[in-house]
Amino acid sequence: MSQKTLADLNACSKDDFVGALANIFEYSPWIAEQAASARPFAGVNQLFGAMKAAVDRAAPDLRLALIKAHPDLANKTQRAAGLTAESDFEQNSLGLDRLSDAEYEAFERVNNAYRAKFGFPYIVSVRRHTKDSVLRDFERRLPNDVKTETQKSIEEICRIAALRLDLLVASDDRLQVHGRLSTHVLDTHSGKPAAGIAVELVELSNLGVSRVVTRAVTNADGRTDQPLIGGRPVPIGRYELTFSVGSYFAQRQVPMSDPPFLDQIPLRFSVSEPEGHLHVPLLVTPWSYATYRGS
Amino acid sequence: MSQKTLADLNACSKDDFVGALANIFEYSPWIAEQAASARPFAGVNQLFGAMKAAVDRAAPDLRLALIKAHPDLANKTQRAAGLTAESDFEQNSLGLDRLSDAEYEAFERVNNAYRAKFGFPYIVSVRRHTKDSVLRDFERRLPNDVKTETQKSIEEICRIAALRLDLLVASDDRLQVHGRLSTHVLDTHSGKPAAGIAVELVELSNLGVSRVVTRAVTNADGRTDQPLIGGRPVPIGRYELTFSVGSYFAQRQVPMSDPPFLDQIPLRFSVSEPEGHLHVPLLVTPWSYATYRGS
Amino acid sequence: MSQKTLADLNACSKDDFVGALANIFEYSPWIAEQAASARPFAGVNQLFGAMKAAVDRAAPDLRLALIKAHPDLANKTQRAAGLTAESDFEQNSLGLDRLSDAEYEAFERVNNAYRAKFGFPYIVSVRRHTKDSVLRDFERRLPNDVKTETQKSIEEICRIAALRLDLLVASDDRLQVHGRLSTHVLDTHSGKPAAGIAVELVELSNLGVSRVVTRAVTNADGRTDQPLIGGRPVPIGRYELTFSVGSYFAQRQVPMSDPPFLDQIPLRFSVSEPEGHLHVPLLVTPWSYATYRGS
Amino acid sequence: MSQKTLADLNACSKDDFVGALANIFEYSPWIAEQAASARPFAGVNQLFGAMKAAVDRAAPDLRLALIKAHPDLANKTQRAAGLTAESDFEQNSLGLDRLSDAEYEAFERVNNAYRAKFGFPYIVSVRRHTKDSVLRDFERRLPNDVKTETQKSIEEICRIAALRLDLLVASDDRLQVHGRLSTHVLDTHSGKPAAGIAVELVELSNLGVSRVVTRAVTNADGRTDQPLIGGRPVPIGRYELTFSVGSYFAQRQVPMSDPPFLDQIPLRFSVSEPEGHLHVPLLVTPWSYATYRGS
Repeated sequence: MSQKTLADLNACSKDDFVGALANIFEYSPWIAEQAASARPFAGVNQLFGAMKAAVDRAAPDLRLALIKAHPDLANKTQRAAGLTAESDFEQNSLGLDRLSDAEYEAFERVNNAYRAKFGFPYIVSVRRHTKDSVLRDFERRLPNDVKTETQKSIEEICRIAALRLDLLVASDDRLQVHGRLSTHVLDTHSGKPAAGIAVELVELSNLGVSRVVTRAVTNADGRTDQPLIGGRPVPIGRYELTFSVGSYFAQRQVPMSDPPFLDQIPLRFSVSEPEGHLHVPLLVTPWSYATYRGS
Repeated sequence: MSQKTLADLNACSKDDFVGALANIFEYSPWIAEQAASARPFAGVNQLFGAMKAAVDRAAPDLRLALIKAHPDLANKTQRAAGLTAESDFEQNSLGLDRLSDAEYEAFERVNNAYRAKFGFPYIVSVRRHTKDSVLRDFERRLPNDVKTETQKSIEEICRIAALRLDLLVASDDRLQVHGRLSTHVLDTHSGKPAAGIAVELVELSNLGVSRVVTRAVTNADGRTDQPLIGGRPVPIGRYELTFSVGSYFAQRQVPMSDPPFLDQIPLRFSVSEPEGHLHVPLLVTPWSYATYRGS
Repeated sequence: MSQKTLADLNACSKDDFVGALANIFEYSPWIAEQAASARPFAGVNQLFGAMKAAVDRAAPDLRLALIKAHPDLANKTQRAAGLTAESDFEQNSLGLDRLSDAEYEAFERVNNAYRAKFGFPYIVSVRRHTKDSVLRDFERRLPNDVKTETQKSIEEICRIAALRLDLLVASDDRLQVHGRLSTHVLDTHSGKPAAGIAVELVELSNLGVSRVVTRAVTNADGRTDQPLIGGRPVPIGRYELTFSVGSYFAQRQVPMSDPPFLDQIPLRFSVSEPEGHLHVPLLVTPWSYATYRGS
Repeated sequence: MSQKTLADLNACSKDDFVGALANIFEYSPWIAEQAASARPFAGVNQLFGAMKAAVDRAAPDLRLALIKAHPDLANKTQRAAGLTAESDFEQNSLGLDRLSDAEYEAFERVNNAYRAKFGFPYIVSVRRHTKDSVLRDFERRLPNDVKTETQKSIEEICRIAALRLDLLVASDDRLQVHGRLSTHVLDTHSGKPAAGIAVELVELSNLGVSRVVTRAVTNADGRTDQPLIGGRPVPIGRYELTFSVGSYFAQRQVPMSDPPFLDQIPLRFSVSEPEGHLHVPLLVTPWSYATYRGS
């Protein structure tokens, strides 16, 4: 799955074009084939538009075949038999390759219940989700009728395809598939950005163990050098962001109680828009703090 | 250990007086005996002063005997053999009757190391502490010399005695041995106190499982009907106070993201002054919150 | 207008009763006369209820006469000729005895326009208002029809009467005619109540000069010994409350910029419920502050 | 005073070079003359360095002549006789061309007292100041001795020169002589940036009338399109920044009290670092707000 330039895709043979984009839509090279005739593309957005148009005008049975071409989530047998490289990468991003027993059972229940009702696999763009939010999404969709779920499945397939295309194709323009989660610590005791504060971002889970997403230390500007999450969708889900403020103020020899009133400050919040920019700052003294959804 | 009035203690026979107060200082009725001659007492503070004076003027060997009269913390053999009712109550208040194996071992290590160095048991007023802070206190005291620890032990014994006396004697005046932990939720989205918010106070522990201290629901004034902790010392230690704000705003049909940006808000803080009033309020909208050490 | 006890009013002759309460409703002793027959009263609320009932059951022409018995607001000729002591006190409380020329003209315009349209004076319970809010109230009421304004006038007359009765009669119960405005300064730099902060409350005016309502200094608890406004209605209107935080932090030798980022902090807010309790606290460091409508 | 490029100044004749830079230091072309020999300059910082070096190595009597070449602040006679275009622009930026009588007298007092003590005019880089801070600066400097004030005067002269050079010369590099004052309004009631809020920045004055510096309306990002002050030093002084939040929330049909608890919110703060970036944000609901010194 080595990256291609848009120029290459515009210039190469039709076979090479189709070969390169065969799995943008899982096991469905016919979509790339149809899009090929619209070459050259001015940008990756136009390329994606052409592929999506092919899906939109496809006959119902072809759309159903597209849906059925997708694997189950976290299905051990299918994983053993081999997924597409793309599916494998995506499912791993969610941690589906290292589920606890409880989680594995939860996903198996989801898949079986869904397949039993609709006759096709439950499809969701897992890179936009956490394990918790996948299960929540499933619970909301299971009561739907077939028509609604067919439509939902196509929508999710297109989201999956856009993320795959974004990874594969280098172009001057970008698909709007990335979000950002950032923070900023302002020390309102000294009136300055708080540098050197250790922060830890954890993805919370109802099912099993929570998972550390990233650790960082604030720089001279009170920010992290890199966004906490960036260059990809920010998965829908619940998070806890913890700031080690006790040691920060201790190092600055600020008078505090013993033990310090505030030491590790956890901010617990949810992400609902994977493609948005969510800013979660902390305004802090040894005796008070505040946070808000910024942007 | 039925409660006595100060009037009764002033009026009763010396034997009855000594009998009633025999275990205010663990297994040391001589202290009550000396205090008896100072009767009548104008208040419980004066009574405590007389008993403390007896301790202060006691000869070194008698003070050492007083120290040695105390049991080890969380010692299973001693517990099986029977503690004074007072010690039993106090140790249970800290949860020493239901330790995990890891905790039990930690306390045993503490006791043995301390006794090996000083020749007398490690004494601390456990009603002023959590398990974590007891272990922290031990680590700070172990490097001390014998003289310092003898003095520290007497101080802790007097704190224990004051709390026992406060429980035992009804008087118009009160010993200053109680603290208070309170909260208040202000909904700055509607500009009103937030009523009906579920709050949960948990004592955090490095060693084993955290422990729910209390659960409550805010009243029309945004406060809890009873303080979160009151009528006793607020144990030194780390706590997490969690507010269920997601369901509160959902019930008021306030527009929110899905999932809500804020749902369970945890405030993590430490208590350092068991006899003080610590107020930990929450100012909250669906998109922001603030807290501070109030009073 | 010396204060009476409810017991006295219950026990005295009918003439004395009517004499004492003759001006509770301006120049309308018939109301007290009717209420007299309902004696004895269990409390001042019951007494007020009896007087209000007399107004409520009065025939339209008597109600109109009651309305017409009231003076114009801020009318120099009437003031020179003499108002009831009660009207004089009330108008002075609003500062109607020391109007600027612009203000005097504004009130004269109001009175004349209102009287020209309705044939009776514009009546408002001035102790519940500031000059600004009186003029705003007038502008809202002038477009009304006679029926609505007759009703509004009676309502205001009853509010005036309740306040007069509250001043005159000492009783175990109280009429709910008082409000309270309070503040609290919390120094979140040191984690303690801010003592010794000078505060100044000013009533803002669109018309003329603003007026200092009160000055105070915060006590050890970060509060003022007396509420900023208490024991009377909190007049509807706009206010500015200024806190001298620069000198406070300077005295505590807290490092600051030169000149200090924050020195005099003004909080500008409106009062809308004269009988309510409005709490306007300040959470402050040398580099940040927050306020909110508390209660 | 039309702008020159650094390239032109490097390439032109020495006479043209000196002519162009003659008044960078007031009436002192000898400084440009000395600097000319160091051409070509890699950037404007290097050019300024060469001019400043000429000042630094000048003999005491030449430095004194440089000081004495400067006009008094706000001296009507001198203004009538004509200042350099540069001095005129600078003094006008402070509003010295439109002083009230009280202000005029205050400045005259300053000038006379200073000149009487030191024998040379009081010099300050007025573009870095407000009228208030000039008078405060004067009061601090008047008690100094001649040596200190000679040094201070040279420092201020160099600051003035840097600002003049920054205006005159276009170069790829910039002198660090500009600061920035910015704001941001976050509506924590809706969790979004507050668009369409009118803001007004006023320079406060102890002496006379306060002066509106700028008015703006927040954009979709809750910021102003241009910084409140930018592209120049942010004058040391006291400011009030007012936000019209009442009409903003009213337009969004947010339930409020009548009159609204918050309508015009004033933030009063001081600027102490003219070359720094001062960010003064507002977090606001109809019932609460917070601000802090950001960056």
